[in-house]
Amino acid sequence: MLEGCASLMLLPCLFPLFAVALASSPCPITGLPLVRNISEIPQDDYGRAGLSHITVAGSLMHGLKEVEVWLQTFSPGTHTPIHRHSCEEIFIVLRGSGTLYLASDSHGKYPGKPQEHFVFPNSTFHVPVNDAHQLWNTNESEDLQVLVIISRPPVKVFVYDDWSMPHTAAKVKFPYYWDEQCYNEPPKDEL
Amino acid sequence: MLEGCASLMLLPCLFPLFAVALASSPCPITGLPLVRNISEIPQDDYGRAGLSHITVAGSLMHGLKEVEVWLQTFSPGTHTPIHRHSCEEIFIVLRGSGTLYLASDSHGKYPGKPQEHFVFPNSTFHVPVNDAHQLWNTNESEDLQVLVIISRPPVKVFVYDDWSMPHTAAKVKFPYYWDEQCYNEPPKDEL
Repeated sequence: MLEGCASLMLLPCLFPLFAVALASSPCPITGLPLVRNISEIPQDDYGRAGLSHITVAGSLMHGLKEVEVWLQTFSPGTHTPIHRHSCEEIFIVLRGSGTLYLASDSHGKYPGKPQEHFVFPNSTFHVPVNDAHQLWNTNESEDLQVLVIISRPPVKVFVYDDWSMPHTAAKVKFPYYWDEQCYNEPPKDEL
Repeated sequence: MLEGCASLMLLPCLFPLFAVALASSPCPITGLPLVRNISEIPQDDYGRAGLSHITVAGSLMHGLKEVEVWLQTFSPGTHTPIHRHSCEEIFIVLRGSGTLYLASDSHGKYPGKPQEHFVFPNSTFHVPVNDAHQLWNTNESEDLQVLVIISRPPVKVFVYDDWSMPHTAAKVKFPYYWDEQCYNEPPKDEL
């Protein structure tokens, strides 16, 4: 009964094949099948050691305008940056556990003071628009795997180096393959 | 490693407890914990035999404005109505298999001519805005369980009795607990 979740683990072995296919088609909205096997979608770490990111359904790859779904896996001890973004975000924890740091008093350039929340297998939580947050895999022996749903793709985030510091001037586009050649509409989340 | 998915099956035994809690709190946006155990969220069939619907994260229950997530289980042979709605919808098949009927030529009151798509464990697909569609569990021996993500909640749908018939005059609110006392903003998907 759990083939669907179990087969998510097949992804790494299939990655090389699909990396080749994508490289030959930089704007691949057309030509992709409507029904796709998640195990066959390429993953990337976008330069973050211990991260596996898969865009299950997205604006660039699949032409979505209002919502995007990612499958992310964090190895033990790894985490997202401290960041915020002007979209809603929902998490579903598929396996592993960790800690969410969430500041409900973010304003201007400062992230606010975070509260800690324990997250566990089969839990769900959401991050309100523009609340600074960070997700850590604090489990020393197990990956943390989450399904992430965001509104208003493609998301652009403000990143903070520390909970006491203002955010950096630059906004970071995520996933980093966001490409203006492939997405001609103006971003909706300019701040 | 699959505790998260396995524990989704614990839900039915917990339903009576939570039905009581909800009945005593008709506008429960406040007071719910940020991190919630999906196994403890109430399910309902909304009058459709063979359906189990859980709102994992929603507009009424959790104050979301831009995106909503459901966990739906269809027993063998059951299906959604033929319908369309002015929001994006993404499906992730957690277990089981079935058939998606999707018409990309819906217009006005008529659903258009559907094409059949086989959906399988660990597959994903999306339904473009206002395309008429229907999902069937065509597997005779296994439930079909899907995670459903929609934009612009709460969704209101146009229902068709048949692929050759115009939609009924009335729009159906879904989930049916949508309550104007609890959601004061005008719906965004009036057609």
